[in-house]
Amino acid sequence: MASPFRHAALVGKYQARGIRPILEEIAHFLVRQGLEVTLERDTALNTGITDFPALAADGLGESCDLAVVVGGDGTMLGIARQLAPHGVPLVGINQGRLGFITDVPIGSYSEALASMVGGDYEVEHRSMLEGGVWRDGRQIFGSIAMNDVVVSRGATANMVELRIDVGTEFVANLRADGLILASPTGSTAYALSASGPILHPGIAGWVLVPIAPHALSNRPIVMPDTGEISVEIVAGGADVSVNFDMQTLASLLHGDRIRVRRSAHQVRFLHPRGWSYYATLRRKLHWNEGVVD
Amino acid sequence: MASPFRHAALVGKYQARGIRPILEEIAHFLVRQGLEVTLERDTALNTGITDFPALAADGLGESCDLAVVVGGDGTMLGIARQLAPHGVPLVGINQGRLGFITDVPIGSYSEALASMVGGDYEVEHRSMLEGGVWRDGRQIFGSIAMNDVVVSRGATANMVELRIDVGTEFVANLRADGLILASPTGSTAYALSASGPILHPGIAGWVLVPIAPHALSNRPIVMPDTGEISVEIVAGGADVSVNFDMQTLASLLHGDRIRVRRSAHQVRFLHPRGWSYYATLRRKLHWNEGVVD
Amino acid sequence: MASPFRHAALVGKYQARGIRPILEEIAHFLVRQGLEVTLERDTALNTGITDFPALAADGLGESCDLAVVVGGDGTMLGIARQLAPHGVPLVGINQGRLGFITDVPIGSYSEALASMVGGDYEVEHRSMLEGGVWRDGRQIFGSIAMNDVVVSRGATANMVELRIDVGTEFVANLRADGLILASPTGSTAYALSASGPILHPGIAGWVLVPIAPHALSNRPIVMPDTGEISVEIVAGGADVSVNFDMQTLASLLHGDRIRVRRSAHQVRFLHPRGWSYYATLRRKLHWNEGVVD
Amino acid sequence: MASPFRHAALVGKYQARGIRPILEEIAHFLVRQGLEVTLERDTALNTGITDFPALAADGLGESCDLAVVVGGDGTMLGIARQLAPHGVPLVGINQGRLGFITDVPIGSYSEALASMVGGDYEVEHRSMLEGGVWRDGRQIFGSIAMNDVVVSRGATANMVELRIDVGTEFVANLRADGLILASPTGSTAYALSASGPILHPGIAGWVLVPIAPHALSNRPIVMPDTGEISVEIVAGGADVSVNFDMQTLASLLHGDRIRVRRSAHQVRFLHPRGWSYYATLRRKLHWNEGVVD
Repeated sequence: MASPFRHAALVGKYQARGIRPILEEIAHFLVRQGLEVTLERDTALNTGITDFPALAADGLGESCDLAVVVGGDGTMLGIARQLAPHGVPLVGINQGRLGFITDVPIGSYSEALASMVGGDYEVEHRSMLEGGVWRDGRQIFGSIAMNDVVVSRGATANMVELRIDVGTEFVANLRADGLILASPTGSTAYALSASGPILHPGIAGWVLVPIAPHALSNRPIVMPDTGEISVEIVAGGADVSVNFDMQTLASLLHGDRIRVRRSAHQVRFLHPRGWSYYATLRRKLHWNEGVVD
Repeated sequence: MASPFRHAALVGKYQARGIRPILEEIAHFLVRQGLEVTLERDTALNTGITDFPALAADGLGESCDLAVVVGGDGTMLGIARQLAPHGVPLVGINQGRLGFITDVPIGSYSEALASMVGGDYEVEHRSMLEGGVWRDGRQIFGSIAMNDVVVSRGATANMVELRIDVGTEFVANLRADGLILASPTGSTAYALSASGPILHPGIAGWVLVPIAPHALSNRPIVMPDTGEISVEIVAGGADVSVNFDMQTLASLLHGDRIRVRRSAHQVRFLHPRGWSYYATLRRKLHWNEGVVD
Repeated sequence: MASPFRHAALVGKYQARGIRPILEEIAHFLVRQGLEVTLERDTALNTGITDFPALAADGLGESCDLAVVVGGDGTMLGIARQLAPHGVPLVGINQGRLGFITDVPIGSYSEALASMVGGDYEVEHRSMLEGGVWRDGRQIFGSIAMNDVVVSRGATANMVELRIDVGTEFVANLRADGLILASPTGSTAYALSASGPILHPGIAGWVLVPIAPHALSNRPIVMPDTGEISVEIVAGGADVSVNFDMQTLASLLHGDRIRVRRSAHQVRFLHPRGWSYYATLRRKLHWNEGVVD
Repeated sequence: MASPFRHAALVGKYQARGIRPILEEIAHFLVRQGLEVTLERDTALNTGITDFPALAADGLGESCDLAVVVGGDGTMLGIARQLAPHGVPLVGINQGRLGFITDVPIGSYSEALASMVGGDYEVEHRSMLEGGVWRDGRQIFGSIAMNDVVVSRGATANMVELRIDVGTEFVANLRADGLILASPTGSTAYALSASGPILHPGIAGWVLVPIAPHALSNRPIVMPDTGEISVEIVAGGADVSVNFDMQTLASLLHGDRIRVRRSAHQVRFLHPRGWSYYATLRRKLHWNEGVVD
């Protein structure tokens, strides 16, 4: 059967020990499957692999119709965000522990990958957040996020006060350590540590999770992702910051407004046939699958 | 302006002290607005109001194009469930404290109600759950619920073990005091007490909230309401029970299976113009709306 | 070195598969260490071991100066409660998984036990709860508990209302699924599932943990164990129950009052030298001990 | 009856609007009760009150046998910490909302205060934390705290990793936003927002509350306050900070060690006769005291 894919981008967590031979092996494997292979530029530069052409993310997005990512969830999220505007689907090979989204084990990648490049896979769509920071009517920062947008108090303040609106509706004033606005993908990351619920990726919504709120009744809220969320810094010292995934803007001022909406782009993850979202949850969260106690 | 409504059903929390004169006043008020008025039968019987015709819920559903409910959220949910198949919209007048869904204060109902029967209102749709219990392949119980379906251990067992599936996918085995499957409407009721998140009514999903789970990682999960949820009693003594809102089936057996899906019917609540879901949350949950501490 | 112990009681989880040869082996091992051995009566009856004398718990309490328990935490708690008035210290050999208090692995019991019966061990004291139920001024039930006293609503009621006092001070009225009053030992059992904190056994206190409370601000409270706690059933239908560990009194009536105080007796657990309470927590709760993610 | 007190220190939240006439009135009231009155120096300087002598906290500690504090819990905690080594008891008059520890309402202070300076009061002891930061074997920071010691990640790091020991025992490695070590007094402050339990002031312990921990099983632990707690910065970027109440040391380095023990000093709060700790909880946390829903 002919592969539906012709040109694979290969991306690696290049800081990881011993990643070079693994990437070389996977690159040659993909070539044997009949695919053209281009390395992500930083991956090539940092590993010293020169047998394959290399392109920055935007270039990969234009040339490739599949991305194979070797690393952890962080590596996967970073490149997925960049490839999303180009619609390139991604496969994640987890080098260390099983991730929430990198679910092909490195030890048995060849079988899984052979089937997948042959066209046998499950597709899963994940939404993304996009937005920025507005000051005095002008946008001073913009970014997209796969996991979450997080507003945090600084280390020397004891709280931040935020005014939350959705569309034209006032939601609440929140006094807390901060606020997490998480996508379903982000709901199993930081938001989970802050007592947020898990959101199945099929939910067309996001969750607002307050971090250490002063009012005990400030509970997580799941909202449709159709409206634009606005978070205004009302009080909280000079060192409030906002993170879109890990990109940070520090030193927010009172009156600054963070606006977030659902991105027009989606990420497409490819999983081996038989993949199950709940199976991943069970393994990552160590849920017991039977009567064991 | 002519009313879009012609025939109002009037339903009251007839156990409440002093409800009779209030209902009579509202009935006459509706007549003055040009509407025909029929009382819900139990309301009529228990209050002794005889000036108006009376019908059981099904009859009201067939004849009326508006239901005016005087009482609390419980009264509203009870009749809403019964009228849902008929598509009759409901207005809730709260007799005591403000409810989540009964939001016209009795003290100022006439203004609000006059505008609303005149056609000036906000419509809000709420989803419902429907399902039942299957034993040995046969359905032995069926019901619908606006708030939640709750499976609970009995008083003498120390836990119940449940197998949860959605569609054909295995979700998890859960050992806990019980499990709540809540609609967005139910997310601010019992599920909130059990540490569930708030679900905006616009979310096309429901939330599974485990009650006192043995595994600390058994966190609430928000799922799309497109799949059928199956909950099987795996272990837990002879006195496991299931509630659909408040209708209970006790003495479930091992192997019994509770199946729940989104109902084909929706409830339509009418609110005064300017109504805000978040304003109701703020008042009911005592969120601070400004810097007050 | 001469053993400080002369006469060991041997207790087993007799329902466990393959327990007989293990108990026989341990009995003979203890004899070889110079100890007299008496079996707990139900253990002897149910396993059919007849080579040793057998006594009920009270008899063991009077004759023995050490109890060796083979099973899990449940077996240990059951016999510990009965031996407490006699001051007999206990060693727990866990047959299956590591327990919170049964911490000698069956696979390597001989080394650990040899040292311990030789006098080389750590002693840990655990407090107990005792109390009962009063109706119309008369006590109708009494018991002691190592883990917790739990008041629960019945399956058909949607909550129980409880009035809590400590000594002569009114604490709160609670509307909830129930209330757990846990000792430090019980803080890692049911109370933990209901979101209670962990109490180190050195804390001279207990924790009140509400189960699914209606008021979101009804948080767990840790109190000194010097006062008597009184819990009165204010409302909640006819099927409210109370459990002292697993001994249940059902069908409590409105006005019934549960009174609990710290028992005058303590349990003494013996652990292998080098034992650490926190090490047990880390293993049982799967805390990461290093940077692994 | 002669007052057991001879010389009152008067301390005010001098930033509060309209505080000057209130302080003058209370000062004269105390004089009329037969007490000598000295103002706290900053209170005098900032309000411009010159009719009374003024001393800094240490001077007050040496001369006075009672401190009357007008403000909120923050004002009270600040001065209590400074007076603690001198054993001066404190009375708190709350100017705005009822505090957890400032419980004499300004509107009716004269009656309450007259009785109290006459010797009719309840005494309550509160423990304090003391400690500091050690780097390369030398102490680089020291402080005491009534509420809590808080270690926090910086705004640009996504977590801090901490190694926790108590005495010579290893407790756990924690990866989280931070860690709160709270006294019973602090258990109703920041620790409560981070899901910690309430600790009655009679508990000779403190509670460790992780903030947004990576491991869902990292739950609050209540420990005896007899051991010294050590918290070492294992990882977390360059901007980790520690706060003792509100005194901050920023820019902690890897290897820095925070050590905290129970202070040898206690604070004594005086309350009006009939005062109840639980009544304060009920009012501050809005617990329902009866059946109101």
